[in-house]
Amino acid sequence: MIDFTDRLSRAALRMQESEIRKMSTVGARVPDLISFAGGYPDHTTFAWDDYRSIVADVLSGSDSTVLQYGPTRGYPPLLESLGEIMKHRSTSVMTDELLITTGSQQGLDLVGRVFLDAGDVALMELPTYTGAITAFRNVLGTLVGVRQATDGIDLDHLDWAFMQQRAQGRRVAFLYLTPNFQNPTGVLLSRAKRLALLNWAARRDMLIVEDDPYGVLYFEDSATEAETRPVKADDVEGRVIYLSTFSKTLTPGFRVAWLVAPSSLMTKFEAAKQATDMCTGTLDQRIVHEAIVRGVLRRQIPELRRQYQRRRDAMEGALTTELPDSRWNRPKGGFFIWLELPRGVDGEALLTTAIEQRVLYVAGTAFFVEAPERNFIRLAFSGAPPARIVEGVGRLGRAVRHQLVGRPKNCITP
Amino acid sequence: MIDFTDRLSRAALRMQESEIRKMSTVGARVPDLISFAGGYPDHTTFAWDDYRSIVADVLSGSDSTVLQYGPTRGYPPLLESLGEIMKHRSTSVMTDELLITTGSQQGLDLVGRVFLDAGDVALMELPTYTGAITAFRNVLGTLVGVRQATDGIDLDHLDWAFMQQRAQGRRVAFLYLTPNFQNPTGVLLSRAKRLALLNWAARRDMLIVEDDPYGVLYFEDSATEAETRPVKADDVEGRVIYLSTFSKTLTPGFRVAWLVAPSSLMTKFEAAKQATDMCTGTLDQRIVHEAIVRGVLRRQIPELRRQYQRRRDAMEGALTTELPDSRWNRPKGGFFIWLELPRGVDGEALLTTAIEQRVLYVAGTAFFVEAPERNFIRLAFSGAPPARIVEGVGRLGRAVRHQLVGRPKNCITP
Repeated sequence: MIDFTDRLSRAALRMQESEIRKMSTVGARVPDLISFAGGYPDHTTFAWDDYRSIVADVLSGSDSTVLQYGPTRGYPPLLESLGEIMKHRSTSVMTDELLITTGSQQGLDLVGRVFLDAGDVALMELPTYTGAITAFRNVLGTLVGVRQATDGIDLDHLDWAFMQQRAQGRRVAFLYLTPNFQNPTGVLLSRAKRLALLNWAARRDMLIVEDDPYGVLYFEDSATEAETRPVKADDVEGRVIYLSTFSKTLTPGFRVAWLVAPSSLMTKFEAAKQATDMCTGTLDQRIVHEAIVRGVLRRQIPELRRQYQRRRDAMEGALTTELPDSRWNRPKGGFFIWLELPRGVDGEALLTTAIEQRVLYVAGTAFFVEAPERNFIRLAFSGAPPARIVEGVGRLGRAVRHQLVGRPKNCITP
Repeated sequence: MIDFTDRLSRAALRMQESEIRKMSTVGARVPDLISFAGGYPDHTTFAWDDYRSIVADVLSGSDSTVLQYGPTRGYPPLLESLGEIMKHRSTSVMTDELLITTGSQQGLDLVGRVFLDAGDVALMELPTYTGAITAFRNVLGTLVGVRQATDGIDLDHLDWAFMQQRAQGRRVAFLYLTPNFQNPTGVLLSRAKRLALLNWAARRDMLIVEDDPYGVLYFEDSATEAETRPVKADDVEGRVIYLSTFSKTLTPGFRVAWLVAPSSLMTKFEAAKQATDMCTGTLDQRIVHEAIVRGVLRRQIPELRRQYQRRRDAMEGALTTELPDSRWNRPKGGFFIWLELPRGVDGEALLTTAIEQRVLYVAGTAFFVEAPERNFIRLAFSGAPPARIVEGVGRLGRAVRHQLVGRPKNCITP
């Protein structure tokens, strides 16, 4: 057989399977495993009956375009609905500023391709979403980390990192961040910092890529809708590219998400998407559009907030009991707890024991573009019902205790 | 507003909307237009009733994975079915050599990303499929044209082009071609040339990217299944990457296609896809899988062959009457007639008059990576019923006659 190594592009040589997806593959092989690994939405919330009746209607055959190639920008009535959705997010958007993407992952990929040449800098939170890391790495971007505090990105460090890259002669293309219930930390960026970020972007003539999959999933006991107001909402200069998705509110199976960008950029995004997959699934777009028009989305969201809040509560309760020496900041929304393990426990090393105990998570190191912190792990509380969460955290507790007990033993046995 | 020009990547600066997609946008604005532009399958052949009953079953809610994130490689039972489909195409394939892609367009994009660094050469037929051109251009590939004869690619010219690029110090990554009913020329690559191509690839240590959307759609009056045998079928060394799709047989709306590559390459393709859209739509994959299992695909294909053959006949008949001074080679399958206009008629210039006459096509220049021939146009006979084809060709005839009459007049009036 052929050796392909010297035939691969520089990008391909760097490509690696995502840690999160790898964990899913591992998980599929272990019976009775409880997975806190993938940020999977709760499938019991999926509106099966609504989708069934929607599909029966849209597949009647009376409208042939339902299964034909569609416009690259997206199904026009869905674009209209997105205008309404953005209005509910305090953001006024014209139809020509919208692009439907095949999942937000495609939005991230397009952002990378439109803005990054090899070596160009993307500023990223430390830690940040792995999907953004791989998308920007795959176009050979230089990823530079910016520290976060409990109220979000550290603005002093941001400016320092920016100036340092500039001083080294690099082109800094944008700052990527997830202001609402960040993946993996769960952090909610404060209102003051959102406005300060826009000032910073204007002062430094920078672009901001705002990823917002979780904003509508705030928990009513600790956050308000006003606190999730997108950075984009106050973007008068057109410096913010905004991404959001239906994967966490309707279902990931449809692969329907969207990107908002100044209309002058849209022809480039559209051309990039055209060469990538021509158009997003047309049936999927119809289903999503009908789910909006028929009120499915509107009915779902308050229920999802309650559901995920209950799951967060179950996980926090169990962590307090089972892992009293671990620490975390209570997430006010979203899917994740970013857990600091007891001192000296390495998140990657723990994984083998955890899998033996039939529980799965993602080691924190996967989320860092530099200076990985080894004693963090990401736990998704979204996918499992409360009783399973409690059981899973119990298993995790046992794994940690084994690790702590096992360690000195390993040092003295040959 | 911000000027984004100096913020775009080199790739983005080169990105342009596809001519074909642009024509579709134009077409949508003209009432009673007959379009021969996009390679749209005939929507009356779509199996609406089957899809409706399939979806009612798969959305019962009993299997939660139907709407959840799925494996990046694809839905495992669909991968199994693809093994069977490839066997019917005389090609034996292991599951770990298969990847589901979001349309073949994504397959082309992944091929570009995995093999091409900026400046690397992709050898392409003259003319060739625009979607491949843009995919490889978007990773800054250097696209080098190879002439074709009526039985397919010119092997002498291929080797000459290859050696010339090598001599100039460029890395030649692969040859891209569409052996079956090529887009846009409709050419069927001869059996002898298929085998000669594999010999050439072995001698020059090259890879071949074989794009096969139309192979099963041969016309029984002029071609046999044996003649469409993929190059991949005889690829003992693993030099051929093969792409195919359900867009032309089931529907394009599902965005489900596949790529076959040596398993040692698959981790790279998978990682590239992961960062691009995570996974192909999971509902779409289920529908396609059920359509295979329930025999929908098998039932459709012979009917599609007859249907498209009738449409080709309608177009050829009308062309003979309406455009007696034009020339074409009879396509033995697929969707397209590659029409050489009467001497001196420019395909791009004709477009304005054609749209006035309410008929649309794609000017041939869009399909050339170099040395465009200006008096060719691509006519898709797939999308319109025979009567509309006849009417559309009539309009095209009028447009050509206007152009021929108008031209000398334009030369003498000031």
